[in-house]
Amino acid sequence: MLDQILRNNKKLKVSKSKRGPWKIESSSTAKNTRNFIREIIENIKVEPNPDKPLISLTIGDPTVYGNLKASNETIEAVIRAAEQGAHNGYAPAVGYHNAREAVADYLSQDGAEYSFQDIILCSGCSSSLEMCITVLADPLKGQNILVPRPGFPIYRTLAESIGVKVKYYNLIPEKDWEIDLEHLESLIDDNTAALILNNPSNPCGSVYSEYHLRRILEVAYNYQIPVIADEIYDRIVFPGNKFVSVASLNSRVPTLVCGGLAKRFLVPGWRVGWVAIHDQMGAFDCEVRQGLVKLSQRTIGCNTLIQGALPCILKNSPQNFFDNLIDTLMSNAKICFDILETAQGIIPYKPQGTMYMMVEIELEKFPEFDDGLKFGQKLVEEESVFCLPGECFEIPGFMRLVLTIPQELMEEACERIVDFCNRHYLF
Amino acid sequence: MLDQILRNNKKLKVSKSKRGPWKIESSSTAKNTRNFIREIIENIKVEPNPDKPLISLTIGDPTVYGNLKASNETIEAVIRAAEQGAHNGYAPAVGYHNAREAVADYLSQDGAEYSFQDIILCSGCSSSLEMCITVLADPLKGQNILVPRPGFPIYRTLAESIGVKVKYYNLIPEKDWEIDLEHLESLIDDNTAALILNNPSNPCGSVYSEYHLRRILEVAYNYQIPVIADEIYDRIVFPGNKFVSVASLNSRVPTLVCGGLAKRFLVPGWRVGWVAIHDQMGAFDCEVRQGLVKLSQRTIGCNTLIQGALPCILKNSPQNFFDNLIDTLMSNAKICFDILETAQGIIPYKPQGTMYMMVEIELEKFPEFDDGLKFGQKLVEEESVFCLPGECFEIPGFMRLVLTIPQELMEEACERIVDFCNRHYLF
Repeated sequence: MLDQILRNNKKLKVSKSKRGPWKIESSSTAKNTRNFIREIIENIKVEPNPDKPLISLTIGDPTVYGNLKASNETIEAVIRAAEQGAHNGYAPAVGYHNAREAVADYLSQDGAEYSFQDIILCSGCSSSLEMCITVLADPLKGQNILVPRPGFPIYRTLAESIGVKVKYYNLIPEKDWEIDLEHLESLIDDNTAALILNNPSNPCGSVYSEYHLRRILEVAYNYQIPVIADEIYDRIVFPGNKFVSVASLNSRVPTLVCGGLAKRFLVPGWRVGWVAIHDQMGAFDCEVRQGLVKLSQRTIGCNTLIQGALPCILKNSPQNFFDNLIDTLMSNAKICFDILETAQGIIPYKPQGTMYMMVEIELEKFPEFDDGLKFGQKLVEEESVFCLPGECFEIPGFMRLVLTIPQELMEEACERIVDFCNRHYLF
Repeated sequence: MLDQILRNNKKLKVSKSKRGPWKIESSSTAKNTRNFIREIIENIKVEPNPDKPLISLTIGDPTVYGNLKASNETIEAVIRAAEQGAHNGYAPAVGYHNAREAVADYLSQDGAEYSFQDIILCSGCSSSLEMCITVLADPLKGQNILVPRPGFPIYRTLAESIGVKVKYYNLIPEKDWEIDLEHLESLIDDNTAALILNNPSNPCGSVYSEYHLRRILEVAYNYQIPVIADEIYDRIVFPGNKFVSVASLNSRVPTLVCGGLAKRFLVPGWRVGWVAIHDQMGAFDCEVRQGLVKLSQRTIGCNTLIQGALPCILKNSPQNFFDNLIDTLMSNAKICFDILETAQGIIPYKPQGTMYMMVEIELEKFPEFDDGLKFGQKLVEEESVFCLPGECFEIPGFMRLVLTIPQELMEEACERIVDFCNRHYLF
């Protein structure tokens, strides 16, 4: 009895300091994980005009409107894998051998060469990027990574979440969004752990030439900065342009190429991504390769059914499937450009690839709007057309349109934008 | 020209300090991510006896031998989802509404109640655990989590990877592996961020009574420590025992319940896990719920095909499918126990559930082996039977057997173990 009382007292004593209403704090990691697009969108009142059906040009998900579908070969390969019943158990954390081999083959072109050992399968390209940033950049050393401005905010989200700093290097709109190499160079310091390169670019729709890529790699080589190449839009380029993987240049810069099925195979929800290690000099051999393998063991890769189907998906998807995707995007890009060019006060930028088009807003011509956010909000209110404001990509004064929607909606959306601009433009 | 020279000089100057053979270090996170099972296994020479086929009792993957298969209902649901073509796009990061609702229904039993808002879908239960540890424990504050000994090493891997410390609380083998509550209590300090509870337990095969769970929760409540309940083996319990989810007790302790399809539905490779938030007092409302949502946005949940199939999988898998799984495990457990009990120098522990059995090795009776690792190595060499040594679970002097293999192999393996023990036992 006395024992019990003493124990109870002891309990109370030790825990007293924590008594009171029980509120559990979240960790710094959780607090530092931010969804920048959501934070910006939440500040816009999105109330469409009830007389016009909403056309959303916001989300980079090509499957939303149903006009772009995964190939039959892709779907059948997954159904076969499910029927076989041989792909339900654990795969190695880095992926099945033959799935990795299939990715290695898929990526080995134009001079780039991979073996299965260079491939790590991940749960979507976001996971690929997370692993690459996590393995290269050390928050305990105060390290930073270089990311494009404008660029997709996932890099910042992933980096800041784990305490890694980001530094933005500028892209030059007038030069097809090429990197301002002097600016890039000026940002590099002893704590710079990696350069993130996004080509083809979301949100810019730009596709870098071999010459420009070589110049970027020269900077990386001179300062010995490894490259994380986000190539999730690989080969989604329009006629007259050529996709050049940074790996195909066989520079001496150690590079982690991130990609996946999401965009080109039209299955973003399946969460199939990869990291492809390209490292001519063996700079990743001592620690980074092993580090990636270890990180993959934390949560064990991607769905095994899709892994089982992956060799068929990558080998059997027919050329006309890819051609149809490019035709749709290219045709929508042309429609957008031609229609928007007739509007007052905005400047459409011709994309060279991807699923996006950037449009500059000459805000001084629309003095009734304080900024691009207000412009975008009013565009929703009056025309029920919703575009992502440039603020989401760190480039105020622009907006991003997705090009994946059905043609008649694309035309309708652009015509409404033109009406809106011409109505509000101040002569 | 001069410009160019100056620029080159500048480049060389800034980067000179980094010159030399280019070796990229990995981050502390990568270095701190350890696969403890692999580290231990790598120290054992695994060279089976060429005259006897290898029987591996190591991996907790019930699909390896083909005797345990996913239900037809599960496979058909996924095939239908693939055929429908409506589940290829991005889902919300936390999962489709109806998939979350299906999990909420599945978990709402015996007094536990969830709504879809309490469910976050993840890429496998490892991801669920990762998110829970990451949201609750803050390495920047030097926080620690309490984990079971013996226990599955993933908790330590996930925690130390992000700089969170682990403290081991003891389980008591003689009391069906119940928690030593006094020891547990003695470990709690102001930096203790969470208590990880694994029930039913891997590797112990134990299933906690409602009474014991209430006593654990009392400790957690007194010290205001939130609970992470790893219930991935939920309902895999043998007749005569009852699975009690910690949530069904409706204590005032805020709890994150982790689970998934892996074990009970026999599809570990599919990577479908969940976090179920059970929080009567609203202690997670201020930050933790939101934190989990934000963390889920880093890599965006689990495969959408399986999400599309999830309502059917959870509702339509027939009782005889589950009964068959329990029958197989129970029958193998009985075979193992009955055979191993006849061996000299080892003590089998009857499991109450899960897919595992623990066996104690009276090492003093086997003086030719320095430790359990040597015992296990010799068992492979002579009998081609491979069990995971207790060292993998922080309990030297034990070994863990999996119970999922075909019955004739189970018998064969156990008989070989008996032969081995009787041959080496020192009278």
